[in-house]
Amino acid sequence: MADFLTHLECSKTGEVYESDVLQNLSRQNVPLLARYDLEKIKQRVKKSDLKGRKANMWRYEEFLPVREPACKITLGEGFTPLRKTDRLAENIGLQQLFVKDESINPTGSFKARGLSMALSAALERGVNEFVIPSAGNAAGALSAYAAEAGVKAHVFMPNDTPSAFILECEYFGAAVNLVDGLIDDCGRIVQEKKQVHNWFDVSTLKEPYRLEGKKTMGLELAEQLNWELPDVIIYPTGGGTGLLGIWKAFTELKQIGWVSGEMPRMISVQAEGCAPIVKAFEEGKTSAETWPDAHSIASGIRVPGGVGDFLILQTLDESNGGAVAVPDEAILQYSNVMAENTGIFPAPEGGATLAGLIKLKEQGLIDAHEKVVLINTGSGYKYIETFKKKQTLKAEAI
Amino acid sequence: MADFLTHLECSKTGEVYESDVLQNLSRQNVPLLARYDLEKIKQRVKKSDLKGRKANMWRYEEFLPVREPACKITLGEGFTPLRKTDRLAENIGLQQLFVKDESINPTGSFKARGLSMALSAALERGVNEFVIPSAGNAAGALSAYAAEAGVKAHVFMPNDTPSAFILECEYFGAAVNLVDGLIDDCGRIVQEKKQVHNWFDVSTLKEPYRLEGKKTMGLELAEQLNWELPDVIIYPTGGGTGLLGIWKAFTELKQIGWVSGEMPRMISVQAEGCAPIVKAFEEGKTSAETWPDAHSIASGIRVPGGVGDFLILQTLDESNGGAVAVPDEAILQYSNVMAENTGIFPAPEGGATLAGLIKLKEQGLIDAHEKVVLINTGSGYKYIETFKKKQTLKAEAI
Repeated sequence: MADFLTHLECSKTGEVYESDVLQNLSRQNVPLLARYDLEKIKQRVKKSDLKGRKANMWRYEEFLPVREPACKITLGEGFTPLRKTDRLAENIGLQQLFVKDESINPTGSFKARGLSMALSAALERGVNEFVIPSAGNAAGALSAYAAEAGVKAHVFMPNDTPSAFILECEYFGAAVNLVDGLIDDCGRIVQEKKQVHNWFDVSTLKEPYRLEGKKTMGLELAEQLNWELPDVIIYPTGGGTGLLGIWKAFTELKQIGWVSGEMPRMISVQAEGCAPIVKAFEEGKTSAETWPDAHSIASGIRVPGGVGDFLILQTLDESNGGAVAVPDEAILQYSNVMAENTGIFPAPEGGATLAGLIKLKEQGLIDAHEKVVLINTGSGYKYIETFKKKQTLKAEAI
Repeated sequence: MADFLTHLECSKTGEVYESDVLQNLSRQNVPLLARYDLEKIKQRVKKSDLKGRKANMWRYEEFLPVREPACKITLGEGFTPLRKTDRLAENIGLQQLFVKDESINPTGSFKARGLSMALSAALERGVNEFVIPSAGNAAGALSAYAAEAGVKAHVFMPNDTPSAFILECEYFGAAVNLVDGLIDDCGRIVQEKKQVHNWFDVSTLKEPYRLEGKKTMGLELAEQLNWELPDVIIYPTGGGTGLLGIWKAFTELKQIGWVSGEMPRMISVQAEGCAPIVKAFEEGKTSAETWPDAHSIASGIRVPGGVGDFLILQTLDESNGGAVAVPDEAILQYSNVMAENTGIFPAPEGGATLAGLIKLKEQGLIDAHEKVVLINTGSGYKYIETFKKKQTLKAEAI
């Protein structure tokens, strides 16, 4: 296979780093971004080359950092359905609404993409013991890919994480650690432990290749829409790797001429109980403050702060996008609306995108004729406890 | 699209029935089987035609009963990964072991295939209100496809069904009925209600097209193995539609010359607490008796009896296959072994296939050089309660 990855680049200074050796953050303590010889890709690869390739994220091999086939640890992730949802669109007053249904991934979430890629790339560079702090889905995904690869995973999750996430990690044979705190508290513990034990840290954006896995969502969106990008993408934002990945895909595709014209507006949805990006965006800031006392039923976006926050804000700005916060009640309500109208049982984070769309539509920020894509990041089946608890509360309130 | 479906056939007498109108069981009260003009398919369709078609079950359109594109209700079901699991194979002492991972389907199980097909075919024939008795996954699948189609679903499940199944049906907007009994009790209630309300009954094998949806598993197995069929297929057997479907696929493919040589041995795995097929097979009978006091943690195969039992036994016999019962403890243990070795978190029914394989291997009924396929019918995420309860019991026993 051709190798188009050339180097890594500090996302703040542009300083160049080697891509052939293990890397975490840059010397400035910010994410490193993978860079490719896009000119060479442009010359050697055609859109039509994709036809007949396997329907998973590895079909975009030229845009990806893993070279050695034996190191590609795959469970069949990616190339998830992009569902056109006409009834839902009509109810909302839109002409074209799509849901990218990431629930149909191994381990039931889009985290499969990032962890498949990060683990494969790290294996290629000699790692055999991994650690991750996680709100749930990332831990499950790391554990699954580590199980397939036959290497060790250590996961750190908040102790109120729904039990599906904890149980899957145990079943996959990972070492599970529950922390009395949130994902950033887990992150702090991981910082200490990894030094002592020499574990490789695959925290969100703290190594360069989870982003490349998430990038495939953007490549797929482009291919599935026949290389005509949508007008608006609504993304439930925790650590933000998916949003950055989709945007990176579009940028690379534009540079090689596979897409053209206006770029989509990228919109972050967060929960009212944890909305650091929304707050920073509204205040016109270029970085976000850590959110105090974060809470939300959508545990995947209950992320008080992260190393990529300035990149998320930069993307929202560059894309002429926005940020919107929604209450837990709306997340719950619109998870149900999405299920009833599409046959997708979304994760609460998926429900949040629909709640966000409704709010933006009401505010006149999205027009009826615009092509909108919601990212349903995962499956509702892993959040049964969350949905049940809320249902009970609702029933008792009546 | 070409139309190759010609008629339906009584599975007992061969009597011909029209395929253009709604049908349930034959006049002999047994399943009807869809028949195609295989000679015409042979002349007009080539294996290479499949290349570049969408990676879902509808890629085999010539072998399927739905004609009208507008009636195809799809959530992206099928073309699930066939995972080669080398470490697991080595641990067991096999050279080639595969898991067909049906957990990566919409609604997290292989039931998506059957219900997508049955609902689509019925819509084409004028139905807009459906009913199903179910152990869980079939109800969830019907509810999801009905939600996408915008039609009404009525589901009847045992009242001890894990809550993920109940909650998903409610989220999809189905009318949910919990029954103090097992799936056959649900079936009896459905028989009464459907007459009164004029609901279309999509019970297992009581209409001809769920089988055609399940058939696509066999078509995929053949295509994914490059048209070289495996030696053994191990299938967790409840109502048996999947086993019959896979066998029907192989039979049709053989008739058109796309596969040749020895056919696979089809093996039914059941739980020791509910093993009507195993008992009948061991006693050399051609039909099975209803199993009294059925129990198993693998609720999908807790099926005391069904209308297709004689067809299952016929297939096991024709294929020179077999049947094996495994205890719940082994189902639990090997669900865990599968997860640890493959990164697939299986439904208990998937764990049962591995438990069955171990038993058959020990009995010398499977040779080391044989190519074996396990069917993991669904996702473990929907059975978290089941797995948790058992874990607690185990912990307390220590």
